[in-house]
Amino acid sequence: MSWHQNRATSNSHKFPLILLKKANCYISCFFFSFLNLQPIGKTILFSFLPILTWLPSYPVRQYLFGDVVSGLSTGVMQLPQGLAYALLAAVPPVYGLYTSFYPVLLYTFFGTSKHTSIGTFAVISLMIGGVAVREAPDSMFSVSASNGTNETDAVLDTEARDARRVEVAVILTCLVGLIQLALGFLRFGFVTIYLTEPLVRGFTTAAAAHVFISQLKYLLGIRTPRFRGPLSVIKSLVAVLIGIPTTNVTAVIIGLLCIVFLFMIKTINDRFKDKLPVPIPGEIIVVIISTGISYGLQISDKYEVDIVGKIPTGLLPPAVPDFSLLPNLFTDAIAIAVVSFSVSISLAKIFALKHGYSVDGNQELIALGMCNFVSSFFHCFTITSSMSRSLVQESTGGKTQIAGFLASLMVLLVVVAIGFVFQPLPQTVLAAIVMVNLLGMFKQLRDIPGLWRMSRIELAIWVVSFIASVLLGLDFGLLVAVGFAILTVIYRTQSPKKIILGEIPNTGLYCDVDEYAEVMASECTGIKIFHSNTSIYFANSDLYINALRKKVNSFWLSGQFRVLTFLKGTTAGGNSNLRPLCPKADLEQGVTEMILSGSAPQLDDEQTNGKAVEPLGDSDPEDTHNLHKPLLQENINIHSIILDFSAVNFIDSVGAKAIKSVMKEYAEVDVQIVLAGCPLLADLRRLQFFEGTVTLDLLFPSIHDAVLHCQHRVGPRPPSPTKRECCSDHQTLVESCC
Amino acid sequence: MSWHQNRATSNSHKFPLILLKKANCYISCFFFSFLNLQPIGKTILFSFLPILTWLPSYPVRQYLFGDVVSGLSTGVMQLPQGLAYALLAAVPPVYGLYTSFYPVLLYTFFGTSKHTSIGTFAVISLMIGGVAVREAPDSMFSVSASNGTNETDAVLDTEARDARRVEVAVILTCLVGLIQLALGFLRFGFVTIYLTEPLVRGFTTAAAAHVFISQLKYLLGIRTPRFRGPLSVIKSLVAVLIGIPTTNVTAVIIGLLCIVFLFMIKTINDRFKDKLPVPIPGEIIVVIISTGISYGLQISDKYEVDIVGKIPTGLLPPAVPDFSLLPNLFTDAIAIAVVSFSVSISLAKIFALKHGYSVDGNQELIALGMCNFVSSFFHCFTITSSMSRSLVQESTGGKTQIAGFLASLMVLLVVVAIGFVFQPLPQTVLAAIVMVNLLGMFKQLRDIPGLWRMSRIELAIWVVSFIASVLLGLDFGLLVAVGFAILTVIYRTQSPKKIILGEIPNTGLYCDVDEYAEVMASECTGIKIFHSNTSIYFANSDLYINALRKKVNSFWLSGQFRVLTFLKGTTAGGNSNLRPLCPKADLEQGVTEMILSGSAPQLDDEQTNGKAVEPLGDSDPEDTHNLHKPLLQENINIHSIILDFSAVNFIDSVGAKAIKSVMKEYAEVDVQIVLAGCPLLADLRRLQFFEGTVTLDLLFPSIHDAVLHCQHRVGPRPPSPTKRECCSDHQTLVESCC
Repeated sequence: MSWHQNRATSNSHKFPLILLKKANCYISCFFFSFLNLQPIGKTILFSFLPILTWLPSYPVRQYLFGDVVSGLSTGVMQLPQGLAYALLAAVPPVYGLYTSFYPVLLYTFFGTSKHTSIGTFAVISLMIGGVAVREAPDSMFSVSASNGTNETDAVLDTEARDARRVEVAVILTCLVGLIQLALGFLRFGFVTIYLTEPLVRGFTTAAAAHVFISQLKYLLGIRTPRFRGPLSVIKSLVAVLIGIPTTNVTAVIIGLLCIVFLFMIKTINDRFKDKLPVPIPGEIIVVIISTGISYGLQISDKYEVDIVGKIPTGLLPPAVPDFSLLPNLFTDAIAIAVVSFSVSISLAKIFALKHGYSVDGNQELIALGMCNFVSSFFHCFTITSSMSRSLVQESTGGKTQIAGFLASLMVLLVVVAIGFVFQPLPQTVLAAIVMVNLLGMFKQLRDIPGLWRMSRIELAIWVVSFIASVLLGLDFGLLVAVGFAILTVIYRTQSPKKIILGEIPNTGLYCDVDEYAEVMASECTGIKIFHSNTSIYFANSDLYINALRKKVNSFWLSGQFRVLTFLKGTTAGGNSNLRPLCPKADLEQGVTEMILSGSAPQLDDEQTNGKAVEPLGDSDPEDTHNLHKPLLQENINIHSIILDFSAVNFIDSVGAKAIKSVMKEYAEVDVQIVLAGCPLLADLRRLQFFEGTVTLDLLFPSIHDAVLHCQHRVGPRPPSPTKRECCSDHQTLVESCC
Repeated sequence: MSWHQNRATSNSHKFPLILLKKANCYISCFFFSFLNLQPIGKTILFSFLPILTWLPSYPVRQYLFGDVVSGLSTGVMQLPQGLAYALLAAVPPVYGLYTSFYPVLLYTFFGTSKHTSIGTFAVISLMIGGVAVREAPDSMFSVSASNGTNETDAVLDTEARDARRVEVAVILTCLVGLIQLALGFLRFGFVTIYLTEPLVRGFTTAAAAHVFISQLKYLLGIRTPRFRGPLSVIKSLVAVLIGIPTTNVTAVIIGLLCIVFLFMIKTINDRFKDKLPVPIPGEIIVVIISTGISYGLQISDKYEVDIVGKIPTGLLPPAVPDFSLLPNLFTDAIAIAVVSFSVSISLAKIFALKHGYSVDGNQELIALGMCNFVSSFFHCFTITSSMSRSLVQESTGGKTQIAGFLASLMVLLVVVAIGFVFQPLPQTVLAAIVMVNLLGMFKQLRDIPGLWRMSRIELAIWVVSFIASVLLGLDFGLLVAVGFAILTVIYRTQSPKKIILGEIPNTGLYCDVDEYAEVMASECTGIKIFHSNTSIYFANSDLYINALRKKVNSFWLSGQFRVLTFLKGTTAGGNSNLRPLCPKADLEQGVTEMILSGSAPQLDDEQTNGKAVEPLGDSDPEDTHNLHKPLLQENINIHSIILDFSAVNFIDSVGAKAIKSVMKEYAEVDVQIVLAGCPLLADLRRLQFFEGTVTLDLLFPSIHDAVLHCQHRVGPRPPSPTKRECCSDHQTLVESCC
């Protein structure tokens, strides 16, 4: 507090905002009276109510103006978006206004993101609308009005239906809030780390597609049923296409005009960003003008254009949601809670990164949970951050949650004073506003070529996330996308580089012999140094061992030796007393392949009787024929294999067993396998790796030590290659592989 | 072929088995007539029909005796198990005998595992039974027989019901076979690498629990409905407990006697394994004796003990399955196909490892698929490998698939000749046989203490696999278990070691300064070498950066500096022109913590007015109070941070961005971050890492080079520490950390 007071008093003579400063001071004093609490309680309180940490040090002079401008700009957007998204949520428009007030106010106290604009959001509204329509379908509210004859005309009791849908949306929101609170208190905010950027961008693009298609019917002024569940996008699109003949031309014209106008305003705002003090509030202009025109021309009556309809003035008293609906909504609530949090935290992270502060995932969950839970008592539906509004809030100079606070006050003003004014607003205008707002999201399609160049795996995440979310719906789509993203990690551990290292002469540095051939990296005689940048665990221990065998050519070595022993007349039975030269599995396979490729008969010509297999020079040429002769000479001399474990991050019991068994197998043919640079000593001990023939002697702190050991083992010490000159030519090294 | 002929002829004068040898020769000749095919076709044929590779070289003298003994022993087991498991599958017992013949015969040709015994298996039978009962419930076949009054007694048309259930089982088997074939041809055998050992053992233990509970009702002679789906085990158990009062005492006594007898035989077989030429066939003894007793005493009529019932003699003509049922069964078929394959391949792998040959996952899929598909035309239900039979087949000296072939012939003999003999066999005896066979599986519970010591993560996989499979059913359980196993890999990448390295004097070796303090590993002045054995990707880039910051103490450094600058009267506003010393996020957090812990007021005493925060010595003591003073002096001198990338296996765009931004942040406070031992150069380039301030100059092939660079950068070159003596004391090093 002293700090804040100090700054406040020292600055007080310089600026005219004395009144605000004083208020600020009082607020600070009030907050700091909490400080008599125990330290731990204090910490918890501060983390639960982040406003306590930032408001006392709120730099009025620097921040307030920006926050006011930003708050007003955002508030102006909250209004039309609230109306528009209420339609998506299948509730009367005024509930969108409520939703643009209560949660936004609450977030000021609980939120940690300074730039996201909480409130109605198209995707979430769409998900709520789906549930509301499912739980309160039109068919439930058709009052049969007998018209004198036997026939009964079904008349829709829209009032009862809407009331019911509001109830569904509200209890759903309450449940979402509870789930988010529970997840927040259980510290489940960490799950967001699985929402990698390509995933979120693919997902939000898919969400934009969902919303865009849902808006088409409003733009065209046609009526189609709502679909939900997998493939609902396609069903909706088909329904709209079928309904095109019933298009309301007036509605389309108004909608398209609005789209063109809004698009122009958006372009101007973008282009003259530096010159405009505040972006032109295109949306509110469109709303005001079209409301006026609609009212003047009475287009609702004359041209049958759907309008917003009744907007009651003032707020409703709080009410307890109808918990009897709860059981049906649980799955939906989980999906909405997760999607809402995902959208919010990914936006918050983007802004936090840009402005150099951190957001706390758990606290964001709690903040969203509080907003949803408390607001549900005030007839609101679920909220999250909206990308379009957040961008405006940030770009108009918003610095803290104060901007959101002011925006909510502005909405409040409209609700209690002039809400009824918007009654003649055509729905097609709202659709136009929503669609233009989606443009930014669709721009994310441009990610694809960049990702293609940068990383195919991340492109795959983007595409899977997009397609799954479009086709399966946002809830299942998100699940599939996260599952896929996790599988890519597994895939990466299973597709490592497998290389043979060689020493760069007189440096003690060991590099890929193929890649660094220029700098003369060469293998040490009789020693194979195998490096694979992967952990060794159940899903890739087989791959590791196979790669090792392939790289050290044991396969061909064994195949050759097998044929040689055969030629010497040794019995070929599996139980023979022939001392196996190589792993048994290789033996069998080697022989099979030899037979198949004709190598064995070729070496064994006098017994084929001319009618059996002929030497097939062209069969599997690169597998056996071309390779086996030189390899025979080269590999027969290998006495040691060094496994470079420096890049092995973890090992499990399956991996340890695999390594141990391959060590034993090679030991049978007098090839010693040693481990170098192994950081997993403790793990290996626990996995009982060092039992039997495998001892600690086979472990070396570096490749170089292992090489020296291996050279020492087989013969007199060679002239020491150990003196390591300071590697001044590392630059050459680095550049040579590019 | 020449090879085989050579061996065959050279051995022919030595052994009396000339007849068999000749047959063998003819078979070989027949097979090799295929060799006129093109080489690729040949390869495919050989891989599709593995018998072509091993039969021609079948060492009659060495293998045949073992195979015959093993085949007879296994065949003797196939009989009672076939009868017992047919009951599990809810089909008449004779279909179990069919299933013990056709698929076993086929596997001889297509299988690659030499020791697994294909045939009926309890778990699979149970799954099939669940589907059969669902699709053909008792209620479908109750014929209402009016008995004169108004009431109608429901009489069960068991014959029609059983016929229907057979149809369901057969079409399900056909579908399973098709799915397995498809997966095999699509080379999906690799999925088994995700079936890690703890997972399989937990899963099979759970399967044993399922089967055990399903057998209780037969053992007790009571009748309960069948349950399926999640929690079916608990429902079944409750139903059995409720039904206990209706226990048939005779059945229980017979069953328990059989269990005791079988258990004794099992113990004798285990203890005198070396002395017995062949294990005592306890099961067939029990079956024969109890059949005799049952027939003699007519226990079915007199004591109402359920018996096996009608067993028709001979085989049925093949028939096309009823494909109209297909759509309902698709999900079940997938689950059964996967479980059947999982069980089979995990058994096959165990034996292959033990005997040093390799099994081909894809070919095993094809083999199982062929067995199931073809057999389904002969009224069989789904098969897989049975653990109990496979153990017998292997331990009695079975060497190749010939053993299975002989076993199937033995079953054939019984079916066409003396099947009817088993009609009076009590069902409780079959239940006893099944239960005793499960003992081996339950022994896997002993894994738990061992895993507890070796690896908690693998224990978690075991336990999750077990509990999920018991509670959710085997299909969902397997899915959950595989998902969990994959998540453990993610978890491992997210819980790496994070260490600061120091040089062991005059070696050029860099080790954990804490762990290797004994060998004098010490940090280089002004340089922090950060090592973390993890890849840097979306799910752990945050963790990596946070660990880095924590380890190099930048947090406290920044907090202190922040307070110092504040004391100097600099404005505290976020937008001040103060050159930031450290990452902004740290700044904010640092200040908050300072205020909370009372550090700031403590340094700033003259302005607190005595009434605000008091220095709270006991708040977060290890976080701030005790640390900040020494750190202040020590860390202010850090000029370089070296990130040891040698253990970084892969990096994605999120990770690259995170590293780049942390490099920039530290550069702002004149701390240079360089990368050492980076094997990811190509990846980093593609991710556009080397743009802007980050250049290739910051990349070094080894830590040592990076250290030299950093030392060179800040001052005159120190006396070279580069001469590296051959590290003869590596053993000390390795042992010091144990």
